[in-house]
Amino acid sequence: MEDEKVNTVAGEEVKMQDGGNEVKEEKKKEKKEKKENPKNAKKAERQLARQMEAAAVKEVDDPLAANYGEIELQTLQSAAQSGRKWTKVSQLDQELKGQAVLVRGRVHAVRSKGKMAFLVVRESGYTVQCLASVAENVISKQMLKFISVLNKESIVDVEGEVSVPPGEIAGTSQQVEIQIRKVYCVSKSLASLPLTLEDAARSELDFEKAEKGGKQYARVGQDTRLNNRVLDLRTPANQAIFRVQSHVSMFFREFLISEDFIELHTPKLMAGASEGGASVFTLDYKGQPACLAQSPQLHKQMGICADFGRVFEIGPVFRAENSFTHRHLCEFTGLDLEMEIKEHYFEVIDLLDKLFVYIFDGLNEKCKKELEAINQQYPFEPLKYHKETLRLTFDEGVQLLKEAGIIVDPMADFNTETEKKLGQLVKDKYDTDFYVLHRYPLTIRPFYTMPCADDPRYSNSFDVFIRGEEIISGAQRVHDVLLLTKRATECGIDVTSLSAYIDSFRYGVVPHGGLGVGLERVVMLFCALGNIRKTSLFPRDPQRLAP
Amino acid sequence: MEDEKVNTVAGEEVKMQDGGNEVKEEKKKEKKEKKENPKNAKKAERQLARQMEAAAVKEVDDPLAANYGEIELQTLQSAAQSGRKWTKVSQLDQELKGQAVLVRGRVHAVRSKGKMAFLVVRESGYTVQCLASVAENVISKQMLKFISVLNKESIVDVEGEVSVPPGEIAGTSQQVEIQIRKVYCVSKSLASLPLTLEDAARSELDFEKAEKGGKQYARVGQDTRLNNRVLDLRTPANQAIFRVQSHVSMFFREFLISEDFIELHTPKLMAGASEGGASVFTLDYKGQPACLAQSPQLHKQMGICADFGRVFEIGPVFRAENSFTHRHLCEFTGLDLEMEIKEHYFEVIDLLDKLFVYIFDGLNEKCKKELEAINQQYPFEPLKYHKETLRLTFDEGVQLLKEAGIIVDPMADFNTETEKKLGQLVKDKYDTDFYVLHRYPLTIRPFYTMPCADDPRYSNSFDVFIRGEEIISGAQRVHDVLLLTKRATECGIDVTSLSAYIDSFRYGVVPHGGLGVGLERVVMLFCALGNIRKTSLFPRDPQRLAP
Repeated sequence: MEDEKVNTVAGEEVKMQDGGNEVKEEKKKEKKEKKENPKNAKKAERQLARQMEAAAVKEVDDPLAANYGEIELQTLQSAAQSGRKWTKVSQLDQELKGQAVLVRGRVHAVRSKGKMAFLVVRESGYTVQCLASVAENVISKQMLKFISVLNKESIVDVEGEVSVPPGEIAGTSQQVEIQIRKVYCVSKSLASLPLTLEDAARSELDFEKAEKGGKQYARVGQDTRLNNRVLDLRTPANQAIFRVQSHVSMFFREFLISEDFIELHTPKLMAGASEGGASVFTLDYKGQPACLAQSPQLHKQMGICADFGRVFEIGPVFRAENSFTHRHLCEFTGLDLEMEIKEHYFEVIDLLDKLFVYIFDGLNEKCKKELEAINQQYPFEPLKYHKETLRLTFDEGVQLLKEAGIIVDPMADFNTETEKKLGQLVKDKYDTDFYVLHRYPLTIRPFYTMPCADDPRYSNSFDVFIRGEEIISGAQRVHDVLLLTKRATECGIDVTSLSAYIDSFRYGVVPHGGLGVGLERVVMLFCALGNIRKTSLFPRDPQRLAP
Repeated sequence: MEDEKVNTVAGEEVKMQDGGNEVKEEKKKEKKEKKENPKNAKKAERQLARQMEAAAVKEVDDPLAANYGEIELQTLQSAAQSGRKWTKVSQLDQELKGQAVLVRGRVHAVRSKGKMAFLVVRESGYTVQCLASVAENVISKQMLKFISVLNKESIVDVEGEVSVPPGEIAGTSQQVEIQIRKVYCVSKSLASLPLTLEDAARSELDFEKAEKGGKQYARVGQDTRLNNRVLDLRTPANQAIFRVQSHVSMFFREFLISEDFIELHTPKLMAGASEGGASVFTLDYKGQPACLAQSPQLHKQMGICADFGRVFEIGPVFRAENSFTHRHLCEFTGLDLEMEIKEHYFEVIDLLDKLFVYIFDGLNEKCKKELEAINQQYPFEPLKYHKETLRLTFDEGVQLLKEAGIIVDPMADFNTETEKKLGQLVKDKYDTDFYVLHRYPLTIRPFYTMPCADDPRYSNSFDVFIRGEEIISGAQRVHDVLLLTKRATECGIDVTSLSAYIDSFRYGVVPHGGLGVGLERVVMLFCALGNIRKTSLFPRDPQRLAP
C-alpha cells in the first residue's frame, strides 16, 4: 500500500525519463532514510498521503490548473527564454508595494488553515511570506491543496503582488508579503530531510529559551551537519560565514595589489618532500615520487628569485597531519605573501599590520548584515584591534607569563593553552585581541628562517595572534646559499631533495621575507566560531574525505 | 692554481659561516657548471681572475673604501633600520634630475673603459645606466675596479645622483642615468650562468638581424629555460607575462563580484574518482583511496545546491594525462564559475560574453606596458573581438567547414586541426578571433551536461575559442537526480563513487550552469604565445615535476 503511493508520486517526476531502475533507486533511498530517522519518516508518510490526495484532487477539472503544478523537466532544459523579470527575495521591500513580482526560492515553511495557505519562500538565507486564499478565478481549492503539500526545501517559482501588512512580520527577513497568483514547483525535495533548517539554524539562546518553556528542540550534531553539508550550508549563519570568507580574500588581494604585489600560482605537485617533515601527502607522478605542497613557501621564494619583487598567492595547502583539534585541517586555504625587504623584517610586519587592519575594517564596514546573521546563531564579541598593532618579542611574552605566575621554557614554543593564556594577559594589559609576537627562538622555526644579526639563538620571525590563537606565521628568509644549506642540514633535511629551491639562490637574490595565513582561521577567529570545520566549505580532516 | 683562486673569492662570502663543507660544495657546483657549459666556463675563469685582482687592489688602503664593497650577511640579517628612501628603477625619470637616489637591483651589464665604468642595473625588467669615473674624493681606482668585476645578476645597492644626458639612451628602459657615489654588493651571483639574460630575451627579429650582419647568437632552448626558470623569468617578456596573468585573475574576480558572485574554495582531495576517467592522480589519504580533483566541477555544483546562487573559484586543477601538446599541462590554474539559471543556458553565455570583453578591454587598457614588452620578444597581432560575441551552433560550425570543403562527422568532436581551420573560417567571415560554439552533440560532453529540450542528441553546452583554440568549456548541468544517475550510468561511471555529489540534488536544486577556463590558456592565446609552458610559472607536464 505504502509502496504504491511512492510509485504514483515519484512516477510523476519520472515521466520523461522512462526509467524503472531510477524509481527503484529513489524508493530505496527513501526507505533507507526512514530507517535512519524514524521521526522524520512518520512525517514523510503523512506528507505523502497529503500529496496523494492533492494529486487526486487535481484530476477534477480546474479552470485555474495552469496557475500551479510541477514544471516538467523538459521545460527546464532551456526550452525557451521568456524575458520575464525576476526579483530576489532580498530585494523585496515596501517600495515594491502593489507591484507584480516573480521569485524563485525554496519552500522554507508551509501551513494551511481553512481557505488560507502560508508559504515562506527562502533564497540565499532571506525569507518572505507568501499568501494564498481561495477566491473565485484567483485561487482554487486544488491550488491551495497543491501549495499546502509542497515538500520543504523544494524549489518553487512564485508570482504575485507585493503587499505591506500593518505591523511587523515575525519569522521572515523581509517585511512585505506576496499575494500569490501562480506557484510552480521547479525541483522537488525528498520529503524526509536528514536535518531540518530550523533545527540547524538555532542558537544556544533558542535552546535555553525553549528549555525554560518546557520545550525541547533537536540538536544537529557536527557530523550530521558535515555529512549533509549542502543542507547545513543553507542556514543564514552559514550563508553569511562564506560570504564573509569571500570578502576576506577580496580585501587581502585588493590591499596587496594596491601595494604593488602580483598574484602567482605555484605548483602543488612537487618532487621531493616539500618542506620536509612527516606531514606530507605522497603520490606517484608518472613513475616519479611526488608530494603535495605543504605550503607555497619554496615556490613563492623562487618567485622573489625570479624578480617579481612582491608576490602573493591564495590556494590550497595540504597537511597529512593526524591532528584532531578544533583548528587543524588536512586541506585548507592558504593566504601567502612574500616580499623583498630592504633592511629589516619589520617591513613585513608593517605591511601585515596595515593589511589586517584593512581586512578587519572592511569586514566591519561591508559585511554588517553577514556578521549580524552569524551573531544571531553564534553570538560573539567584536574583535578588538588597534590602528597600529601591538608588537611584543617572544621574550616579552615569556616575561608576561612569568609575571602571571606561569613559568615556561624561554627557548621552547608555547602550547595552545599557554598561547590562550598569553592572549588573555595581553588583552588585559593592552586591550587588544590582535597582536604580533616576534623574535622567536631559532630552533623552533623552519630551516629557511633568518637568524637574528645580534644573537643567532633567535630569529627574524613572528607569529600573529587573534583571540589568543595563532593565525599568521612569518619571517625574514635565509637568502644566502651557504647559510641555507647549513641550516637545512642542521634541521635534518636532505638538501638534495631541495636542490631546485636551493639552486634558485645561486644567481643573486634580494633579502626577503613573507608570511602565511590560514583563511579558515581568520574567519573562525574573527567571529569566534570555535571550530575550523565551521569555516571550511567541505572540510577535510584525518577522518573526513567527503562529501 | 685555479682552485686557490676560487678559495679566496668564495672565502670572503663564507667568513661568518665558518663552513668548510659549504665552500667545497660551492666549488663542486662551479666545476660542474664549467663542465656543462665550456664557453661560459672560460668567461667565468676570466671573471675570477679579474675579481682576484680587484681583491688584491683593495688591500692597498683606500680612503674611499667605505663607499663600495660587499655587504656582510650579518648586516642583511635585519641588523638595523636606517629610514633611507629607496627608489624603484621604473620610477627613475627626468623629474628626479639632480636628486640623490638609492636603488637596489641586479647587475644587468657592466663594462669599463679607461677611467670609466658603466653599470646597467635592472629591477623587475626595467633598466638604468649608472656611471662611475675616477675622480679624487669621489671614485677611486679601486672602486672602479670593484664595479667592473661585479658578476652579472648579482644584487647591488647603488647611491648616486640622477642626470639627464642629451639624446636617447640606447639599451636601457629608463632615459636618465645615475652618477654613482656608492655601490655595494648585496648578493653575489655565480659568475657562470646557465643562460644569459640577453640571450633569453632575444626575439626572432633579433636573430634575423644578427644573421644578416653575419653574427650568430646562442638560442636558449625550452628545456634550458624551464630547468633554470628563476633566471628565465627575469626577462622583460616573462616579467610582463605573469603581470598580465595576475591582471586576468583580477579582472575575472572583479567582474564576477560586481555580478553578485561569491568566491568558494572547494577541496582538491576527494574520495572516489572525481569526474571519472583515467586522467586522475590517485593517492592514499590516511588509509582511504583518494584522488586529486580534475576540476571543481562537482563541488561548485554542490555550492549551488547549498544556495550560494552564483559562485566562482580560482585554483589548481590536476590532470594525469599523457598529453605532450603545446596546450596541455598536468597541473594548471582553473577559473571556474557556476550560476543559477532561470530559464536558459544562454544566461551563462550572456555572462561570459560580458566577462571576457571586460577582461580583454582591461588588459588592453591597463597592461599596455606589459603587452608591449611581450610584443618586443614575441610579436603578435592584437586580439580581434566584438562587444557582443558571435554565437554559432555546432551544426553551423560543421556547415561552415563543409562549405570550405572539409567534411567532418557532425556528431563527433573536432580535432585541434579542424578547430584551427574553423577559427580561420570564422575570422574570415565574421572578423573575430573570439567566438562561442554551442549545442554540442550530447555524446561528446560529460555526463553532467543537460540534453537539449527539443533534441536529446544535442546538449545545452558550449565551448569558446580564441584564435581557433578552445579556452572555455561550459554547459547547463543536469539538476534532476534521476536523469543524472541515468546519464552517469550511460557514460560508464560508477555512480556509487559519486554518491556525495548525486545526493546533493535530492533536496531541491535550482537549474544551473557554468563554465571552466584555463588561466594559462587565456594568456597564451591572448598574446598568441604558442606554448602553454610560457604562461605557467613552474610548468608540470608528464615529464616535468621540477623546479
